[in-house]
Amino acid sequence: MNPERGFPSIEFAERTRRCQTEMARRQLGAMVVCTEPEVRYFTGFHTPFWQSPTRPWFVVIPADGKPIAVIPSIGAPSMATTWIDDIRTWSSPQPDDDGVSLLVDCVRDVAGSGPVGLPMGPETHVRMPLRDIDRLRSRVGQFVDVTDIISKLRMVKSEREVDKHRHICGVVSDAFQELPNLLNTGMTERQAFAAFRSEILRQGADDVPYLVGATGPDGFDDIIRQPSDREIVDGDLLIFDTGSTFDGYFSDFDRNFAFTKASQKAKDAYRAVWEATEAGLEVVRPGATTTEIFAAMNTVLKANGSLGNDVGRMGHGLGMQVTEWPSHTASDHTVVQENMVLTLEPGLVWAPGKAMIHEENIVVRGDGPELLSRRAAPELPIIT
Amino acid sequence: MNPERGFPSIEFAERTRRCQTEMARRQLGAMVVCTEPEVRYFTGFHTPFWQSPTRPWFVVIPADGKPIAVIPSIGAPSMATTWIDDIRTWSSPQPDDDGVSLLVDCVRDVAGSGPVGLPMGPETHVRMPLRDIDRLRSRVGQFVDVTDIISKLRMVKSEREVDKHRHICGVVSDAFQELPNLLNTGMTERQAFAAFRSEILRQGADDVPYLVGATGPDGFDDIIRQPSDREIVDGDLLIFDTGSTFDGYFSDFDRNFAFTKASQKAKDAYRAVWEATEAGLEVVRPGATTTEIFAAMNTVLKANGSLGNDVGRMGHGLGMQVTEWPSHTASDHTVVQENMVLTLEPGLVWAPGKAMIHEENIVVRGDGPELLSRRAAPELPIIT
Repeated sequence: MNPERGFPSIEFAERTRRCQTEMARRQLGAMVVCTEPEVRYFTGFHTPFWQSPTRPWFVVIPADGKPIAVIPSIGAPSMATTWIDDIRTWSSPQPDDDGVSLLVDCVRDVAGSGPVGLPMGPETHVRMPLRDIDRLRSRVGQFVDVTDIISKLRMVKSEREVDKHRHICGVVSDAFQELPNLLNTGMTERQAFAAFRSEILRQGADDVPYLVGATGPDGFDDIIRQPSDREIVDGDLLIFDTGSTFDGYFSDFDRNFAFTKASQKAKDAYRAVWEATEAGLEVVRPGATTTEIFAAMNTVLKANGSLGNDVGRMGHGLGMQVTEWPSHTASDHTVVQENMVLTLEPGLVWAPGKAMIHEENIVVRGDGPELLSRRAAPELPIIT
Repeated sequence: MNPERGFPSIEFAERTRRCQTEMARRQLGAMVVCTEPEVRYFTGFHTPFWQSPTRPWFVVIPADGKPIAVIPSIGAPSMATTWIDDIRTWSSPQPDDDGVSLLVDCVRDVAGSGPVGLPMGPETHVRMPLRDIDRLRSRVGQFVDVTDIISKLRMVKSEREVDKHRHICGVVSDAFQELPNLLNTGMTERQAFAAFRSEILRQGADDVPYLVGATGPDGFDDIIRQPSDREIVDGDLLIFDTGSTFDGYFSDFDRNFAFTKASQKAKDAYRAVWEATEAGLEVVRPGATTTEIFAAMNTVLKANGSLGNDVGRMGHGLGMQVTEWPSHTASDHTVVQENMVLTLEPGLVWAPGKAMIHEENIVVRGDGPELLSRRAAPELPIIT
């Protein structure tokens, strides 16, 4: 059974209430968000139209009451189907004043001359021309950074959100299980990508926005690549890493395979990242920190001869984006909470130019992690 | 035969040379770009990894010589496969200084204390936290807006780029041609979307990043929607609008169908937008303006009882993004040039809540438009 699509209004009301509690603590008169996941988080507005860079979109969260949409008129019919009542539109594109005045008026309507929040910190950007940000600031004044409010809200998922994650992780687990029946030596990387993408869709994903991978003799060093016309040969390793979606929520995990045979070193590297993940799973619980999770995995990798890696972290949050706050790093120190959805992603560079990356998706429960992805095999699977 | 993947280095050298000619005219010491299409335009770096909001990426274009990549170390192996030689990396995420210092050093290396360009105008955004933009400005000084340089370059496509557009438009035309064999009343919108997406992939698209559509009794008002569980019934109109990709270049056109029967008003509305497109095609040539194209289409729509529409324009540029500069509006006035790739997209609201949108993709040639999409039928197709 697929989880229900969308969310009941109570979910958005609850998100807004939690946000307004934090806003009150900071004495904010309003908060502005303007990127796809934030607008969707507060309104339910869901469209791939965000890929068009032409028009800015805004949601203003008042100190109390429902959020207000300040959007191009092309979005009005879709926004009208959400729980939002107050929808203010302008005909866009209108480069001379693309929503700026309408946004200023709305913010001043709800906040008076009080301070206004805007996410300006790590992992955020303001999705409008910098010239218009300057115009906005000249009329509203300086904004207060509310990255901490937004990240705190979005990092902890509701059970309805977790259900969507669990569903897409199951779909992708099923597709990975089919892979040995779909791939063989002699195929090109491009053919292998196409076969895997179509299998994920066949299994029930809505879309496969993120798919990277690589093949190579006994390994590779580049794990964010698009496919080439390289033919897969005996002894190759293959990695696929996909962020697939159900109802706008992502999975994000990878799997590694060898074709026909694998060196002992490759098998050992696989086992090491699998063991590192086990060590990570051991420490995940409410109250632990992302840095403790990092340290647990890193200890195992070091014991297995890690030469370091270029990824910069060993996993991250997961949600409406393929990566979200927090990051498992040596310095992140975010306290893990119940209902965070996280990836564990230890990476081992076991020889120059040879990386092995492993990834699982979990939700944090009171007593530890619940796996959302089906746990990878402890030994490197060999496609024969 | 599929067009060749990627581009030879000469293409990137030529793009850089044209950019540097404009920079010299403006006496710029360097230019910074930081969004996916711009980074890809100058380097060839191509990955869906941009969906992760965690890390900023920069390319610095000096007054002469090759562009310089200032990027997270996770991207170094991929960037090393491009024509770029100078790749400067840092281990990201590093919230306290996520590339800012490295970027400042690079800009000062190449520009000394000279003025530095950054796109800050319509259809652009700066893809890094606003807090870091402020830090950057406090160390580099104010940037010069170079939206005009970037848009001028990107609006005019090379023949290699046109070949990729033509290919994906052909693929999607083939998929639309198959639609009557794939869809029938009784299917849900969601099933129809899934069938169409998989057909586009089967026909040879790399991906279908943008797919919207709607069904409804005799029409609908919302054309940026995701599918619902609504069942298609006799007398429904259906619109699909897709931006599909080949090698990172988009198609963007729609098609309308009726199921089993259609009202005379719906047929007339379809004919009106088809005729409006004809009128647009008539005026497209180098030297015409986007406003003349708009006016030609708008005249036909008005003669057919248009109630106006919410889209805000009647077509746009097309390229590495599903929409790019320019816009066909009453005030855009961009002069059309040879090798611009454009959409024509007249929309007619023929009754309250009933919109008919039509779209074709073209490349501008010396003597007028070359159609990239296969021209829609002049009468509303009815799926029986």
